[in-house]
Amino acid sequence: MKNFYNERRTIVTDAIDGLIASAGGRLRRFDPSSHARVVVRADWDKNKVAIISGGGSGHEPAHAGLIGPGLLTAAVCGEVNASPSVDAVLSAILNVCGTSGCLLIIKNYTGDRLNFGLAAEKAKAMGYKVEMVIVGDDIAIADAVQPRGLAGTIFVHKVAGYLSEQGESLEAVFEAAQAVAGDIKTLGLSRDTSTVPGSDKQDRIADNEVEVGLGIHGEPGVDVKSFSDCTALMQNFSSRLLACVDESKRHLALFNNLGGLNGLECSILFKEFMASDLAKVVDFTMGPVPIMTALDMPGFSISLVPLESSYRQALLSNIDCNAWPQISPVVKSEPIVPPALPGVPSFASSNEPEVRKVIEAIIASCLSSEADLNELDAKVGDGDTGTTFAAAARTIQGELDNLPMANGAELFTTLSDLTSKLMGGSSGVLFAILFANAAEAFRNNSDWASSLSAGLDAMQKYGGAGPGDRTMIDSLKPALDALVSGSSIQDAAVQARAGADATAKMLSAKAGRSAYLEARSLDGYADPGAEGVARIFEKIAQL
Amino acid sequence: MKNFYNERRTIVTDAIDGLIASAGGRLRRFDPSSHARVVVRADWDKNKVAIISGGGSGHEPAHAGLIGPGLLTAAVCGEVNASPSVDAVLSAILNVCGTSGCLLIIKNYTGDRLNFGLAAEKAKAMGYKVEMVIVGDDIAIADAVQPRGLAGTIFVHKVAGYLSEQGESLEAVFEAAQAVAGDIKTLGLSRDTSTVPGSDKQDRIADNEVEVGLGIHGEPGVDVKSFSDCTALMQNFSSRLLACVDESKRHLALFNNLGGLNGLECSILFKEFMASDLAKVVDFTMGPVPIMTALDMPGFSISLVPLESSYRQALLSNIDCNAWPQISPVVKSEPIVPPALPGVPSFASSNEPEVRKVIEAIIASCLSSEADLNELDAKVGDGDTGTTFAAAARTIQGELDNLPMANGAELFTTLSDLTSKLMGGSSGVLFAILFANAAEAFRNNSDWASSLSAGLDAMQKYGGAGPGDRTMIDSLKPALDALVSGSSIQDAAVQARAGADATAKMLSAKAGRSAYLEARSLDGYADPGAEGVARIFEKIAQL
Repeated sequence: MKNFYNERRTIVTDAIDGLIASAGGRLRRFDPSSHARVVVRADWDKNKVAIISGGGSGHEPAHAGLIGPGLLTAAVCGEVNASPSVDAVLSAILNVCGTSGCLLIIKNYTGDRLNFGLAAEKAKAMGYKVEMVIVGDDIAIADAVQPRGLAGTIFVHKVAGYLSEQGESLEAVFEAAQAVAGDIKTLGLSRDTSTVPGSDKQDRIADNEVEVGLGIHGEPGVDVKSFSDCTALMQNFSSRLLACVDESKRHLALFNNLGGLNGLECSILFKEFMASDLAKVVDFTMGPVPIMTALDMPGFSISLVPLESSYRQALLSNIDCNAWPQISPVVKSEPIVPPALPGVPSFASSNEPEVRKVIEAIIASCLSSEADLNELDAKVGDGDTGTTFAAAARTIQGELDNLPMANGAELFTTLSDLTSKLMGGSSGVLFAILFANAAEAFRNNSDWASSLSAGLDAMQKYGGAGPGDRTMIDSLKPALDALVSGSSIQDAAVQARAGADATAKMLSAKAGRSAYLEARSLDGYADPGAEGVARIFEKIAQL
Repeated sequence: MKNFYNERRTIVTDAIDGLIASAGGRLRRFDPSSHARVVVRADWDKNKVAIISGGGSGHEPAHAGLIGPGLLTAAVCGEVNASPSVDAVLSAILNVCGTSGCLLIIKNYTGDRLNFGLAAEKAKAMGYKVEMVIVGDDIAIADAVQPRGLAGTIFVHKVAGYLSEQGESLEAVFEAAQAVAGDIKTLGLSRDTSTVPGSDKQDRIADNEVEVGLGIHGEPGVDVKSFSDCTALMQNFSSRLLACVDESKRHLALFNNLGGLNGLECSILFKEFMASDLAKVVDFTMGPVPIMTALDMPGFSISLVPLESSYRQALLSNIDCNAWPQISPVVKSEPIVPPALPGVPSFASSNEPEVRKVIEAIIASCLSSEADLNELDAKVGDGDTGTTFAAAARTIQGELDNLPMANGAELFTTLSDLTSKLMGGSSGVLFAILFANAAEAFRNNSDWASSLSAGLDAMQKYGGAGPGDRTMIDSLKPALDALVSGSSIQDAAVQARAGADATAKMLSAKAGRSAYLEARSLDGYADPGAEGVARIFEKIAQL
């Protein structure tokens, strides 16, 4: 057993303890020494009609998670997939039932019918007013005399809970609960079985198949269908439900996650449901939400209930319960036309001989270093630093005559765009960030070195690496710092070289691919990015 | 690929469609023809600070499911486990950012840092006010320079969303968001990997092991621990978190289901969490809830944030968002002492010769029919009807001198108790219901036949079978009907026999074990229960 349980025999007791602990005082339970696993509204005062549900466990949040004002008063929890005992149900009735009486809501399974039924009769013999609604909302078997109770049962909880909260009589609550119970249609589908404690997982459903018309206890579905895509699947599924509902009426639909579907699957299936013919009879939806689960079953059920005026208000009213999802009207949402993004900035090209000489020096350095830097990177990374630098250099070389060299802000903006679009990988984005920020800074200060220094700050902020992390920053930052403080380009080149050489003694990289290497693999090799930057500065210094 | 997806390339687009369809008009999306997968609050008017989050998909309901008043303004959705593009983020900013500016909240992953970062710089260059908070709440690696962003990120969404909704400035929102982001501590644990679209599921974690310190993209945890029970597991897990938090402060804790845990597991783990030393620093809890998932990963994370006065109100305030769970105070819930159940009724024994003769005849019939009924049941059921009837008869035989025969209500009540406690199975409960109801009826009408008839009605109501369903009802009902209408016991016996014989031609059973048999297996064999009842009436008729 790989599930997070302690012992099998304490699963339900432990889970109830956890539920109570998470409920902020809203719930109480029978003393754990009692064999009756009963959870009760903490603020219940017996003046209104008590609404009791329950049955086997394994359907969480149902049933104990559905306790609260406007929903259930109490839940009687059996073992996983097993009905609670007559005594447990009777204890629950005696605890919460006042002179207004109580309504038992159960799903149509023999064990629940009999155990809740006998408890009801015993309570009546003791003078309590007790009624019972048996929900059989499953439409899987066309002529079923005893359809199973499925997720649609929560609609009955809602209607009964609402009317009880309004102070209605047991007769009125019972009548409305009976009416809605008779109107609900539910169908389930799953792509795999659930994992039932104490049983081996059944390998029953093939990889390209799903079962349609399953219950919530792992029993096989009535049909096996092949599965290739959600659109076809949901068309078929929906048409089966549609055949059972009154198309002249408007409905509330519940999309119930049986437990094991991920959020993407739920949304995709919901999309297909809303695109199916069935959606044409639906005015309001609940979910996708796990509300009546089958442990970890990767499937879903859809329940429909017509919005009859006699219980419409009770169904749709808002309540404050964690497990109860918002009820949403079906509304067409108009897509947003995305904003036009600024195109590639096209500044008029301009020449500035000093700038051009620097750029040409950078290009020359990158091209001549390609093999060396690749070789160095092969020792400590993935061997492409030289190629990445050279590719960027060639791109800029090709654009050389189009660059707006006379305007630093325009030049940096253009370089940002070129590096992000053409350099690729993290480096491209990092340089794009540096140049974008430098452009902004240049607009304010018209100073090349301090603009690039501001850009470097942004690169560090977004890239996450700083000095000492064995990256190009270790040579770029001391060089720019030197320039900003008024030193010569020759002095900056010396700083860049010292920084690059120092990386050969940095034995743990904090960013980039070298971060995955052991210290001994790095010892004695400079970071190739830092080395490349040092060579660039040395080249410019020779101008 | 067995998941409910259409094509891999449309997973995220389809899922967004489904989310929008379920949102009742509260959300809008960028036109699907756009490559930018952006979801936006439908009621957004740009007057307040826009709060934008996003990143790779596969963490649903994060991030698009967390859009709404007091939370996110927009979410930018990448492919599964992949950052969205710079252009997508920039589009989102341009769409929702007004003069109040916008705050980007991302989890600390290189792709998100760079793509959101460059988009932010580009937007700033266009004149927008943009700030960015990078959340790194993972404590798995003790000295991590770049801790990952995990579920605790939602606390930052909440604080920023609240302050934005209050009309605070970008500076104030940014400052509070930075403050809370720096205070969050999260640790994850899972018993299995997740199923990533397009990748085979890794069989990495052994059956008796769990990984501690995992991220939300399927990357391995930093530790492997053996798992035997949840108590020890959570003690160890909690102590790691406790070592990282300031024990002098009070905290809000989030229990996040990473997607694949069932409801029972979540509650059991939550119980153990609240029983651990870690709970001593916790004043409020959220969950268990899936809010920042890793597809279907069967694991959880716990996030703690101190309730600093600067953001306490923003964190704890109520909001109306489906995916956002109620925040509950940690409150000790006093268990309820279960009500005392009525003991076995002990009526004074009394003799009534006529009644005793009938009971003795019933006992004699059941004992003498045991083998025959078992043989008949072996043809159509599990072969124990004779034994079940005989066991009940022997029990009553043993109690014969203690029965309150002179008082029908007392006698039926006693028989109800005996059959429910000693007969076992569904039959025991069914007879207990019949007798309990008959007792109630006898109290009102003092008539043996009509009381038993009322009891039979209750048996049908709770048991779900009726005439024609191939059960004992097919002989019991016509016999009791005859007696109620004034016929003799001999006539009633004839009716019972006719009813029992008729079951041999009923080719589909609606209740009991015969319901699982094919028609040809039933043809020619009477229902053993109906046959047993007919024999009882025939025996009484001979008195």
